[in-house]
This record gives sequence, C-alpha cells and structure tokens, in this order.
Amino acid sequence: MTLLRTSRPARADRGIPDATVARLPVYLGALAELAADGRSTCSSGELAEAAGVNPAKLRKDLSYLGSYGTRGVGYDVAVLRHHIGRELGQTQTWDVVIVGAGHLGSALSAYHGFDSRGINVAAVLDTDPARIGTDLAGVEVRPFADLEAVVEEFGIAIAVVATPGEAAQGVADALVAAGVTSILNFAPAVLQVPETVTVRKVDLSIELQVLAYHEQRRASGHEAADEEVAG
Amino acid sequence: MTLLRTSRPARADRGIPDATVARLPVYLGALAELAADGRSTCSSGELAEAAGVNPAKLRKDLSYLGSYGTRGVGYDVAVLRHHIGRELGQTQTWDVVIVGAGHLGSALSAYHGFDSRGINVAAVLDTDPARIGTDLAGVEVRPFADLEAVVEEFGIAIAVVATPGEAAQGVADALVAAGVTSILNFAPAVLQVPETVTVRKVDLSIELQVLAYHEQRRASGHEAADEEVAG
Repeated sequence: MTLLRTSRPARADRGIPDATVARLPVYLGALAELAADGRSTCSSGELAEAAGVNPAKLRKDLSYLGSYGTRGVGYDVAVLRHHIGRELGQTQTWDVVIVGAGHLGSALSAYHGFDSRGINVAAVLDTDPARIGTDLAGVEVRPFADLEAVVEEFGIAIAVVATPGEAAQGVADALVAAGVTSILNFAPAVLQVPETVTVRKVDLSIELQVLAYHEQRRASGHEAADEEVAG
Repeated sequence: MTLLRTSRPARADRGIPDATVARLPVYLGALAELAADGRSTCSSGELAEAAGVNPAKLRKDLSYLGSYGTRGVGYDVAVLRHHIGRELGQTQTWDVVIVGAGHLGSALSAYHGFDSRGINVAAVLDTDPARIGTDLAGVEVRPFADLEAVVEEFGIAIAVVATPGEAAQGVADALVAAGVTSILNFAPAVLQVPETVTVRKVDLSIELQVLAYHEQRRASGHEAADEEVAG
C-alpha cells in the first residue's frame, strides 16, 4: 500500500522501515488465517502467498525482526504472531480519538480490524450539534470542546483528523496543545505541527491515481496486466 | 543554462515505480499551490518542502519523468504540472464505479480532490434497497444488479470496493465478469482475481499501526519524535 510516503531512511538504530512496519499487520492477518485453518507452521512461500506479497520481500521484512524461521520447517505460526504483535506494540491497547463524525469519521469508528490490532476508538469529537450525542459503533459523539478532557481521561497520544480541509489546521493546533503526539490526517490539508509531533497523511485518491497510471499504460500497450498487489 | 541531468535514465519502457507514482499527485498538489501563489518557477528544495518530502527523493522521483529542471532556475511550474499530469493519465478522465454506499462509500463519493486528478465517480452501487435511489454528492445510488450496464455505459475500467469483507469476493467476481480490470479494495478481505486484473488493497488501520509503533518506541526511549511526514 502506498498511501503514505516517508522521508525517513531505514536505519537499524531507528527501528524498522515504515514500509515494513506497514506490511507487518498484513502478515499478522495472514498468520491468523493460517492458525484458524489449524496450521502450526508455514513456509515463507505460503505466508507470502496468503499475504499477497512476494516471498523475497516477506523474508527481508521478517529479517528486521530477527530470524524466526527454521530451514526445511518454516515459521512457527504462534511464535511469529507473538513477535510481530510485540514489535507493533500490540501488547498494549492504544486509545485514539477521532475528530470529525462525518461519513469518514463514522466509517473509521466502525472499522473492523482496529480491535484485533490493539487500537481502540476511545472517543469521537465533532463541533456539529446535530452529531453530538449520536452513537457511532458504540461510542457517543462528544463536543470538540471536550478534547483536553478526553485526552487526559484516556491518556491519548494518537489522534485521527477526519474533518474538512479548512478545519484541519485548527484541529491539529488544538490536538498538539492537548498533548497529542501522533496525528493521522485524512483531511486534504498539509498540517503544520511542532517537530515533536508525528503526522502521517492519507490521501484516498492516490491509490486510484496509481491504478489509473497502470490502466493508461495498459491501454497504450506499454505493459501487461500487473499481478495482484495486496497489502 | 545547463539542464540538470541524472545518472539514471528514465525507464520509459518499464514505467515508474509505484512508490514514485504515488508521490506524483502530491507534487501536483504542491505545484498547484505554488501556481496559485503566482510562482512560475520553483527550486527543488521549495517544491520538496511544499510537498513534505526530502529534496533528494523529489529529484529522484522527477528523474523518472525525464529532466525538466534548469540549474540555477529550478523547475518551470506550468511545464512540470503538464508533464506530471500527462504521466498520471490526467489528460483523460477516468470514470470509476464505487460498490458499497455505506459510510466509507459515501465518504469516497464526496471526496474532494478526485475531480482535480482526473477521476470521476460515475456510479455508486449497493444492494440495500434503503440506499438505492439516494443521492451521494450528486450521484444517485443504483442497484448492484446494474453493474454490467454501468460498466458498459461509462466504459469503466476501475472499480472501488467499499463493501463489508464478506461481500467483497462476490463483488470482485462480478466486477471481473463485467470487464473491470483495476480494483481498489477497501474491504477487509484478500481478493482472488485473474492475473489480468490489478488489485490494490487499502487497510485503514495500517497507518494507525505505524503511528503506534513509533509511539511505542518513543515511550521506551528508542527514538526521538519524528519529523513530520506529510503527504
């Protein structure tokens, strides 16, 4: 998945490259499926196929975690799940706050897969009186003015911005003031934040552009159909 | 004036790496902002800052398109916009169909930025009678049974799957049967498609996992706060 770009170089002392970190949850999902099928071990080829990546990339990614495979046997499914989960910080649950209870905020609130990945939507905030008090997947929408109280109540470090673009910078400023240190930004705006705060931006149109690029090349005879690019 | 030359020729025959393709729309957005500010030229450093990537990566990305910079002057904003837009297939509009008119499909239908990037949501389909006939950002939700007619009517090659996970494979099968060759999958499911079809999968929880990974390392003293990773 190439929704995000990072300018950070891969350096061992600074941890695993973000592109690898982004694939680890995919491997976890594939391992969960193998476990559900009663498998206790798997080869890198099987795991790569289940995850939809090529085996060389899988082996390189897993090499960052240490070497848990055994030649001729493959990976122990339970052991590998444990190590990947630990690496991803899933030994603890991360409470996050979503700002913006429109369609996107609602979709994110109800998003399946957060739970199993150690992410809990602790609160959803909005400024619209018509949305405040409504229920989103079991979480009541609270006034944006409650932000500081919510961050303190849940000890929140990570926030999701799902507001219109013109509101996003103001929201980011308030998040930083409240003590949030990581922001996932879905709004069409580049956020200015202090260096102590991490921002990642998701642009939902980028993946469509990548597909359009390949369709265009295909239409002009430059390339054959791609293989599946999952994850 | 010396045209900037790169040591690496553009791989016209093989296309541009997907990671670069995914950054091109970001550069286009930054160029549009510079143009709106009345700028006719910009340095690679300025463009990199506006796009939130490091200058070396920007220069490498643009080298795949050929060399449009002039030493001491930088890039001609209008010329670079034209070339990037052409590379991305924006000289034509891509009609796409969205399957699933829930919160996520609704958010995508209303997503700003598609228009300016040559992507037009031509149709939204759903199986839920309560959703069929409703209006999403000016597009009427049509029955999923209309899929073949819609694909033919608009000449659609690209589809977005925004259904629950359990419905996604059936939808993908129908899309392939109707002639769709590129699928953007938001559903929590790995889709099986023929080799002639391209699938890209978006997992909205992955970015939160990457943030959690860094928060965890920060909490344990392994890393300082990251710089902003803007898109």
